[in-house]
Amino acid sequence: MKRVTVIGAGNGGMTAAYHLSKNGYAVCLYDSPEFDAQIRAVQQRGGIEAVAEAHGDPMILAGFEPVARATTDIAEAVAWADWMVMVCPSYAQEILFSRMLPHLRDGQLLVTMPGNYASLVFSRMVEQSPRRGLELTFADAISIPWGTRLVGPAQLGIMGMKKFLPLSVYPAARSTPALQRQLEELLPVPVELLPSPLAAGLENINFGGHPLMTAVNIGLLENFNGAFNYYVDCCSPATARAAEKIDAERLAVGEALGLSLRTELEAMNALYGAHCESVYEFNRSSGTHTKMKSAPKSPRDRYIAEDVPYLFVPCAALGRAVGRPALLVEAVIRLAGAYNGEDYFATGRTLEKMGLAGLSAEQLGRRARGEQD
Amino acid sequence: MKRVTVIGAGNGGMTAAYHLSKNGYAVCLYDSPEFDAQIRAVQQRGGIEAVAEAHGDPMILAGFEPVARATTDIAEAVAWADWMVMVCPSYAQEILFSRMLPHLRDGQLLVTMPGNYASLVFSRMVEQSPRRGLELTFADAISIPWGTRLVGPAQLGIMGMKKFLPLSVYPAARSTPALQRQLEELLPVPVELLPSPLAAGLENINFGGHPLMTAVNIGLLENFNGAFNYYVDCCSPATARAAEKIDAERLAVGEALGLSLRTELEAMNALYGAHCESVYEFNRSSGTHTKMKSAPKSPRDRYIAEDVPYLFVPCAALGRAVGRPALLVEAVIRLAGAYNGEDYFATGRTLEKMGLAGLSAEQLGRRARGEQD
Repeated sequence: MKRVTVIGAGNGGMTAAYHLSKNGYAVCLYDSPEFDAQIRAVQQRGGIEAVAEAHGDPMILAGFEPVARATTDIAEAVAWADWMVMVCPSYAQEILFSRMLPHLRDGQLLVTMPGNYASLVFSRMVEQSPRRGLELTFADAISIPWGTRLVGPAQLGIMGMKKFLPLSVYPAARSTPALQRQLEELLPVPVELLPSPLAAGLENINFGGHPLMTAVNIGLLENFNGAFNYYVDCCSPATARAAEKIDAERLAVGEALGLSLRTELEAMNALYGAHCESVYEFNRSSGTHTKMKSAPKSPRDRYIAEDVPYLFVPCAALGRAVGRPALLVEAVIRLAGAYNGEDYFATGRTLEKMGLAGLSAEQLGRRARGEQD
Repeated sequence: MKRVTVIGAGNGGMTAAYHLSKNGYAVCLYDSPEFDAQIRAVQQRGGIEAVAEAHGDPMILAGFEPVARATTDIAEAVAWADWMVMVCPSYAQEILFSRMLPHLRDGQLLVTMPGNYASLVFSRMVEQSPRRGLELTFADAISIPWGTRLVGPAQLGIMGMKKFLPLSVYPAARSTPALQRQLEELLPVPVELLPSPLAAGLENINFGGHPLMTAVNIGLLENFNGAFNYYVDCCSPATARAAEKIDAERLAVGEALGLSLRTELEAMNALYGAHCESVYEFNRSSGTHTKMKSAPKSPRDRYIAEDVPYLFVPCAALGRAVGRPALLVEAVIRLAGAYNGEDYFATGRTLEKMGLAGLSAEQLGRRARGEQD
């Protein structure tokens, strides 16, 4: 039986453990001792349940799947398998990887969902550690493949799935058709190979729908106690115009790096098998997105606290570095920083943390296109 | 009988005409031929009514006052009196003043409410026109003194009044106690003299409550069809933190110019006779502000379309010029520009339009403190 380790037991990690087990893997699920509620629940039940219905809506992939190991011991988790999947908020990535690092072996593969440039950060951490020279393969997915929420202890409601999952492999030399086949055997959706972690970071599908939409609806989110639908009510003609402009800034950064990124509309239609003519139409009609009312309740929610420092800050920094400042992206970063009393330009995922500080636009372009590691 | 001309027959201009008539002035009311609905209504009724109740709330200053002239003839309006009050959205100021200019006489006084740096713009227009050398006195008020709305043809509901009205006189040499007495005879509230149009522009009380609060609640404003209260529902813990930060940027620009500006809280408490301990508390409890539900319905509303280009853009430009960039102010300008597809940094009230382009921080400081014209 093939083995896989899942790092992180939140909504996405629990779903990954469930789905990989369903697909025939012997799964080891890890989370930190500080966040062990689901680990204990999985230990108690021996596995994870996916419910057929939640809040009156039908869910997909219902059933019960065993989980071979559920642990808060990182050494045990890393020893379990050569294939590992990390599913956690980006602000936990470095903490979790630093715990894994002493135990990692040559040849292991770590898929991070969403990646948000994690490959670059992890590689730099390896090179600056006593494990320098360790041969790992990293993959950054643009997202998690599921729309999913924990509804109880060891209990999930899986609302929907994306049609496919774009991801990058790093170092680029390992980005081969053979590895793609391996990844497709591992992951429960078709995989699309992107040329680099920079491409995967810029393609993260939350770019359009989260930081801007949350930042410009913050009174609604804080004052109305969830009595509305996030995607429907936060999307208005003006927010849609701003979202289009912010998407154009992202595409311009990509273009300067030699990448042909999908527009937000193309990505949403492709990933969800939709045929909308505008992001406005998509937001206001998508079944998967309107099924569960799970709006941010404050600017501390991950729509800002994760997506601003880990999606917007790298895009803004890359924009400056290639001479295409993403000024509306920067405006939202500043607004989010004011809400949370934080200078995200400094605390977010900077070029320095990605090992890209001081590179020329041309050098960054080569990295983005996977021409050089 | 003393005469006064009121330029502009919107909410504020109609209230000015009514209140000045009530205080014993023979009033001439002007608006453009393109906006003559209220002018016709006043002609028909011979004056203006202020109702005692609107939308179930008690109003102040109820009654009926005659208006001596209501006209769309600018020559007639300017000929009427030496004291003139212009009450209009800032984007109409230059248009209206350019129509007045051929007819103006030495010695006339023009009070603009709100001013938003109008004195500087008007002076420059005079100097660049065939009327160069014309001796006028300008006053910029930080606001209008009333909380007021038109409720019908020639019919007002006056919700409340500020305790006093800060304003600047320009040229500064005319800013004398004698002129202050004249202004207090004219205006229906005590007057506080500010040192310059720059000080008056930076003290505009809408700075805190309008552009930011509107920009970060745009989904609510566009999607909920007014089924909420602007000041209560758009103010949340996060928006209050951002408002505090944006106020600190404004104060820093003032400080660099040698001005001691009031904080938003000090200004709100002083102008409304309140004793709130935070802007958050003020917004969520002010009687005057919560009485009428008059929230912007789109980013085309004057809370953005007037207050971004005429309040925020000058503050941002001054901030850059004195080495104190107001970065959150700039962020909101950019967001508002994205909503409306407009580059407000170029179309708004720039230093050039105010005749201040190229001045050093020290020169700007002298202008701000009224030490030099």
